[in-house]
Amino acid sequence: VKKNLIVFLISSISLLNWSQVSAQQKLQWQEVHHGIWKATAGQPEKVTLLKTAEIKANETGLSTLPKTTFPLPEGKIDVKILDHKIYLRFPLDKEEQLFGLGLNFQTVNQRGRIMTLHVDHYGGKDNGRTHAPVPFYISSNGYGVLIDAARYITVYAGTGVRKDSENPPVLYDRNTDKKWDAQPYSDAVEILVPAEGAEIYVFAGPTPMNVVQRYNLMNGGGYLPPKWGLGFTQRVPTLYNQDDILKEVADFENHDFPLDFIGVEPGWQSMAYPCTFEWDKTRFPKPEEFINELVDKGISTNLWLNPYVSPKGILYPELENLSGSHTVWNGIVPDITLPQVRQIYKDHFFKNHLDIGVGGYKIDEVDGFDNWLWPDVATFPSGTSAEQMRQIYGLSLQSMTAGWFKEKNQRTYGLVRASNAGASSFPYVIYNDYYSHRDFITALVNSSFIGVLWTPEVRASNDAEEWVRRMQSVCFSPMAMLNAWADGTKPWSFPEVEKAVREVANLRMQLLPYTYTSFAQYHFQGIPPFRSMNLVEGFAFKPTSVEGKLDGTANPYAMSIKQDIKDQYMMGDYLLVAPMFAGQESRKVYLPAGKWYDFYTGVLAGENQIIEITPGLDKIPLFVKDGGIIPLVPVHRHAPEAGQQLQLEVRHYGTAEGSFDLYDDDGKTFNFEKGEYSFTNLSVRKDKKGILKGNMAKITPGKPFNYNNQVVWKFMTK
Amino acid sequence: VKKNLIVFLISSISLLNWSQVSAQQKLQWQEVHHGIWKATAGQPEKVTLLKTAEIKANETGLSTLPKTTFPLPEGKIDVKILDHKIYLRFPLDKEEQLFGLGLNFQTVNQRGRIMTLHVDHYGGKDNGRTHAPVPFYISSNGYGVLIDAARYITVYAGTGVRKDSENPPVLYDRNTDKKWDAQPYSDAVEILVPAEGAEIYVFAGPTPMNVVQRYNLMNGGGYLPPKWGLGFTQRVPTLYNQDDILKEVADFENHDFPLDFIGVEPGWQSMAYPCTFEWDKTRFPKPEEFINELVDKGISTNLWLNPYVSPKGILYPELENLSGSHTVWNGIVPDITLPQVRQIYKDHFFKNHLDIGVGGYKIDEVDGFDNWLWPDVATFPSGTSAEQMRQIYGLSLQSMTAGWFKEKNQRTYGLVRASNAGASSFPYVIYNDYYSHRDFITALVNSSFIGVLWTPEVRASNDAEEWVRRMQSVCFSPMAMLNAWADGTKPWSFPEVEKAVREVANLRMQLLPYTYTSFAQYHFQGIPPFRSMNLVEGFAFKPTSVEGKLDGTANPYAMSIKQDIKDQYMMGDYLLVAPMFAGQESRKVYLPAGKWYDFYTGVLAGENQIIEITPGLDKIPLFVKDGGIIPLVPVHRHAPEAGQQLQLEVRHYGTAEGSFDLYDDDGKTFNFEKGEYSFTNLSVRKDKKGILKGNMAKITPGKPFNYNNQVVWKFMTK
Repeated sequence: VKKNLIVFLISSISLLNWSQVSAQQKLQWQEVHHGIWKATAGQPEKVTLLKTAEIKANETGLSTLPKTTFPLPEGKIDVKILDHKIYLRFPLDKEEQLFGLGLNFQTVNQRGRIMTLHVDHYGGKDNGRTHAPVPFYISSNGYGVLIDAARYITVYAGTGVRKDSENPPVLYDRNTDKKWDAQPYSDAVEILVPAEGAEIYVFAGPTPMNVVQRYNLMNGGGYLPPKWGLGFTQRVPTLYNQDDILKEVADFENHDFPLDFIGVEPGWQSMAYPCTFEWDKTRFPKPEEFINELVDKGISTNLWLNPYVSPKGILYPELENLSGSHTVWNGIVPDITLPQVRQIYKDHFFKNHLDIGVGGYKIDEVDGFDNWLWPDVATFPSGTSAEQMRQIYGLSLQSMTAGWFKEKNQRTYGLVRASNAGASSFPYVIYNDYYSHRDFITALVNSSFIGVLWTPEVRASNDAEEWVRRMQSVCFSPMAMLNAWADGTKPWSFPEVEKAVREVANLRMQLLPYTYTSFAQYHFQGIPPFRSMNLVEGFAFKPTSVEGKLDGTANPYAMSIKQDIKDQYMMGDYLLVAPMFAGQESRKVYLPAGKWYDFYTGVLAGENQIIEITPGLDKIPLFVKDGGIIPLVPVHRHAPEAGQQLQLEVRHYGTAEGSFDLYDDDGKTFNFEKGEYSFTNLSVRKDKKGILKGNMAKITPGKPFNYNNQVVWKFMTK
Repeated sequence: VKKNLIVFLISSISLLNWSQVSAQQKLQWQEVHHGIWKATAGQPEKVTLLKTAEIKANETGLSTLPKTTFPLPEGKIDVKILDHKIYLRFPLDKEEQLFGLGLNFQTVNQRGRIMTLHVDHYGGKDNGRTHAPVPFYISSNGYGVLIDAARYITVYAGTGVRKDSENPPVLYDRNTDKKWDAQPYSDAVEILVPAEGAEIYVFAGPTPMNVVQRYNLMNGGGYLPPKWGLGFTQRVPTLYNQDDILKEVADFENHDFPLDFIGVEPGWQSMAYPCTFEWDKTRFPKPEEFINELVDKGISTNLWLNPYVSPKGILYPELENLSGSHTVWNGIVPDITLPQVRQIYKDHFFKNHLDIGVGGYKIDEVDGFDNWLWPDVATFPSGTSAEQMRQIYGLSLQSMTAGWFKEKNQRTYGLVRASNAGASSFPYVIYNDYYSHRDFITALVNSSFIGVLWTPEVRASNDAEEWVRRMQSVCFSPMAMLNAWADGTKPWSFPEVEKAVREVANLRMQLLPYTYTSFAQYHFQGIPPFRSMNLVEGFAFKPTSVEGKLDGTANPYAMSIKQDIKDQYMMGDYLLVAPMFAGQESRKVYLPAGKWYDFYTGVLAGENQIIEITPGLDKIPLFVKDGGIIPLVPVHRHAPEAGQQLQLEVRHYGTAEGSFDLYDDDGKTFNFEKGEYSFTNLSVRKDKKGILKGNMAKITPGKPFNYNNQVVWKFMTK
C-alpha cells in the first residue's frame, strides 16, 4: 500500500508538471463565409497557404448553398499547444469515411491512414508526400476541415486510440481471438501542426459535395480554362527548335489530329537547367514571329520553366541577394514571398513572354525531390523558413503568374508540379513523372476533393494497347496532353491504334460544350469538373474490409485490406468514365443509384450495382445517367475562333426528363467575371402523350453564345 | 538604377530582419573522453539518447587508442538556432565517404543521401526510418559525428549546395552539357535538429575503425554475450505450450542439431497482445519446472513481449496513470522515463521471470508501424514528448532489462526491434519483419558502424536453395536464429539440404573460440565482431558512380548509380564472409589488399581485387587473410558447461606469420568485468628455416581458460 501511495504521489507531481507546460486552449469559431467557420490556434504565422494564394472568396456562389449550423460537436474538438506545436483533435463517428488529405494516388478513403503532408514528388506511397498535400479532409458525414499552415502537418486520420476515449475499441487477445485487429478502432482525427500557430477552417455540407463547393468557392471558385485549354496539347522534345516545332504542327495537320497548344521544353532557354528565362537565339532566333505564326494556326504556346535562376541569366544580379541560402542545380532560389522578387519576374516575363504572345507556362520541379531541392536548413531573406517555402513555392508561382494573365485579361492554362490549399482558382493542372496508369486515375479521382486539377499525361507506352488506353483516359481529363519531352512520341506513334486515338481525341473536341459547362460549374458553383464517385448523388457503395491473411513476412499483423472505388469517375453531371487499363479485357464498373446508359449506344447498363463490361480496344467505357443531356459539336482541330458559330447536337439518354444549362462566353478573356456570359437551358420534357421532346431556351440577348440555334436532338435510348 | 537601389534597400532590410531572428552561435568543444569532443547547441534537453542509455564510458579501453587532436576544421562547423530548431553544418572533402546514419538496408556509403532519423520498421527505403536510426556518421577521413537528441533529426549527408559555398559545384547547362548532374557536388553535411538544443560529439580516428571503437567504448564497449548466445536458437510457433516446446527440443536432439536457447512466443502470456507479462496457466501450468527442465538440457529460455500493457493484467492498475495518453492495441504505454514505472516492471519481472530462470527477452514492436503506435500527438506524464518517446522506447527497455540481468550477475542475450545511439553495451540483437536476404546482409554490414547487432533471421523460404543460403548467412551473424513463430519451420524443413544446414550450424559451433574472442574485442576495444569492408585495413575499393540513362519515367533526371561493397563482411579479424543468395550460381567478392585464402581449402584466392567464385550449394564462401589464425573446437550441440575443457584446433592460412589473442572467461557471468578473464596468445612464426610453427602462450594462472592445452595446429595453405 505504501509503495502504491508513493507511486501515486510521484505520478501526480509528474502530471502536474505536464499540465504546466501544456497550454490547453478553447477554439473560438467564427463564421467567416456562408457555412464556413474559422478559429485560430496559438499565434498565427505570417506565411500560410491561404495567405500565399491571396484569393477573394466567391461570396455570391457561396450564398446559393444551404444555410447550416456548425457541423461538428464543438465540445469534442480539442486543441493543445505543447513543445512549440499545435495538437488538434476532431471527433469521428463509427461509419464515417474521410476523403482528401492531398493528391493521393492509391487510396480514396483516407480513414485509418497517417499522412505527413509535405510538398514532394509522389514516391509510390500515399503517405502525405505528394504534389498537392492539401491539409483538407472531407467527411462522408458532410463537413470538412482545413488546416491553414505552411508546415509539414501530420494527420492521424482515425488511427490514434486514446486511453480516455469515450468510444474505445473492443479488447481482443491476439493469442486466441480471431477478431483481434492490428489497427483498433479510433474515434478521432488527430493533427500535429509543427508551428506556434495554425488557422483552422470548418466547412459545412450538408453533402460532401457541398463541402467541396464551399472549399472551392472560398478559394475564388474553380478555374475556367480558355476553350483552347480543353483541346489537345503536345509537348515537344527538349531541344526542338522553332522549325522543328512548326514541322510538328504541320504533322498534326497532316494526320488530321486536333492540336490547340504546344509545350516548348527547356531548349527555348539560353540555359536550362538552371534557367535564364531568356530565349535561346540559336534555336529560337525570332520568338515573337514564331509565336505569332503558331497563333495564326490557332495554336497557343506554353513555355517550360523551373524557378532556379542561372548565374548566366540577366535576372541573376538583381535576384542574387533576394534568394535563399542554397542553390538548386546551381540556380539560386528567389525568395518568392518578397514583392521585389515578384516585380523583377513580372517585368522580365511580360516583356519577353506575355507581351509577345506566350500563352502559358509549365512550372516544373517546385515539388522536390529532396535530393536536389533546398534542404530544410536553408534560409531565405524574408525569414520564411525552408519548410514553409517548400509548402508554398508552387502555390506562390501559380498565384503570381495567374495574376499576370489576369492583368492582360487573357486566360491561360498551364502545368505545375506542386500545389497546395487555396489553388482552386489557379489556371494550372498538376502532373508528374510517376507513370502508373491506374494510379493516375486514382489521382484524378482524388483531385476532386482538394481543389486541384490533374492530368494523367501520356509519355510513352510498351505497346499499342497501353497507348490507346492511356490516350483514352487523358482525353477524359482536365488536360489532354502528350508529353514527349524525353520520348519524342506522337499521337500516331502506334499506327495500329492511330484511328482509335484520333477518335477519342475528336470525341473530346466534340464534347467541348459539355466540358466547358462542367468547368463553368467549377467556377460558379465550386463543383469540380472531374469527380470522385463518393461525391456523386446516389453513391451507395459500402467500403468493406477484407480480412488479411497472416504471413510472417508479407503480412505479419494480418492487416485487413480496404476497398475503394478508385478507377472510375464522373466528368460533369452526367458522364461516368470507366477507363480500361492495358492487359484488361473486361472490368467492373460501379453504377450509383438511378439508371445508367451506355454513352455510345444508349442501351441501359444497370443501376445501383456493379456491372462487368467487356468493351473493345477502340472505345473508353462511358455511361450516362438517366435523363442525362450531353451537348456536342462537330469534330474540329482547334478551339472555335471569335464569332465562330458551332452546330449543336444534343443527346438525351434514358427515359427520364432532363435539363442542362449550357454555358458560354468569349472563351478566352476574363470578361465573364463582369457578367459577359450566358447559361442557356437545354431540356427534355415529356409531352402530354409521354413522348420526350427537346427544347432549347431562348438565347439571352447581348450575351455571348457561340452556337447556332438549329439544335439537332438525338434520343439515344430507344 | 533607381529601381535597383530600392530593391537593394528592401532586400537589406529583409536580411536584417532575418539576422535578428537567427541566433548564430559558436560551439565550444571540450574533450570529454580520450579523442572525443563534445559541444552543446542551444538548451540541452532533459531526455536524450545517451541520457536514456545511461552508460559509463570505458575509459581504459579508450586510453589505448591513439592520441589525436580535434579532427575537423573548427571554423568550418556552423550552428544556428532558428524557428525552435538547431541548424548544423559540418564540412566535407571532395573524396570523403560517409557511413552510418542508422541501420540502412540497401546502401553503405551514405554521402549524397538524406535521412530523417526516425525509429520505425524498415519500409524498404534507406530514408532514416529504421529500427536503429542512430544519428552518428563516420567519415572515410577518419572522424565521426554524433548528435545526441531524441528527435527526428534530418541529415543532409552531402546534398545541400550553399550559394556562398567555398567549393561550389561546376555549372553545367542541362540543355547541352552531358556532364550536367541531377545532384550537384555538395561540400557539407547539414543537419536539422527539431529541438531547442542538441549535444554534439566529434570522434577522432585516425582510422574509421578507431572512430567506431571510440564510439563503442564511450558507450561502455560492445556487449559480450554468454557463450550460449553464440549457439543456435529456435523461436517456436505462437501458441506452443510447454509440452510442444519440450518436444521441439527433443526433435533438435533427434536431428542432431545444435540448440542453445529457445524463443517462446506470445502464447506464454495469459493475454498478448496487449500483454500481461503473466504466464498462461493452461499452456504453461508450471513455468519454473519447465524452465529448469530446459536448463537441465542446456537450453536457455527467451520470452517474447511487447510493452503494451493489457487491462486484464496485474500490472495495469499501477501503471494506468503512469502511462501515455494513447493506447497501442488496447494496451497502455507506460512512461518508461519514470523511475516508478521501471520499479513496477522490475518487481514483476524478477519475481515471475528472472528469479525462475528466464534467460532473456525478445522486445517486439517498439519501432512502429505508425498505424498502431502512439501518434506524435500523444502525451506522457513525465512531459517527455511522443517524438522523444518514439526515439528512446526501445533503447530504454534495453537499458532497463540489461540492468536486471547485470544485477543478477547473469549474462543475457536477446532481441529488440528498436534501438538508437548508446546501445553498444546492451545485450540485444535487432531483427525485423522485412525479409530480403540481400538487404539483410547489407544491414549486417551497416550494423558495424553504429554500435548495434543485427540478425538476418530465417523464417521461411520458397525452396531448399533459399533455405540453405539463408541458414548459411544467419550462422555467420551475431545470432543464429530460426524464427518460426508464424511458419513453424525447423532447420530440417527442407530435407534435401538438411545436411548442409547442419554442417553450417556445426561450423558456427566449432568457431566458438574465434567468435567469442571477436565479441571480446567488441567489449574491450570497441571493434565490432561483424564489420563492413570499409572498416577493414587494406580496403581500397573506389566507389564509382555509373552514369544514369535518361528515361522519361524510370529515370527522368538521368540519376547516376553509386556502387557499394554491401554483400560481404568481415567476422572478426580474419574471416571474410561472402554469402550466396538464392538464384546465384556465382558471385563477385572484393578482396582487400594482402593475400586472401579459401577457408575450406587454404588455397590462395587473390589480393586487392574482385574475384568471381562459383561455390556449391553446401558451403558459404569464406576467406581468410594471410597469416590468419582461426581457433576451432569440436562440433557440439550446446555451449560448454562450467569446467568443461574443449579441445582446440588452430588453423593457420597463407604464408605470413600471424597471431591471435584467444579470449576466455566463465562464459555466463559479469565476473570478467572484475578481471576474471584471460587472453592467451596463439601465434605462428617462422623458424630459422622459414618454416611456420604454431605456439600457444602460457595460460594465465588463476584465470578462466576452458580449453585443454593439447592444441592441434593445422597449416591450411600448402
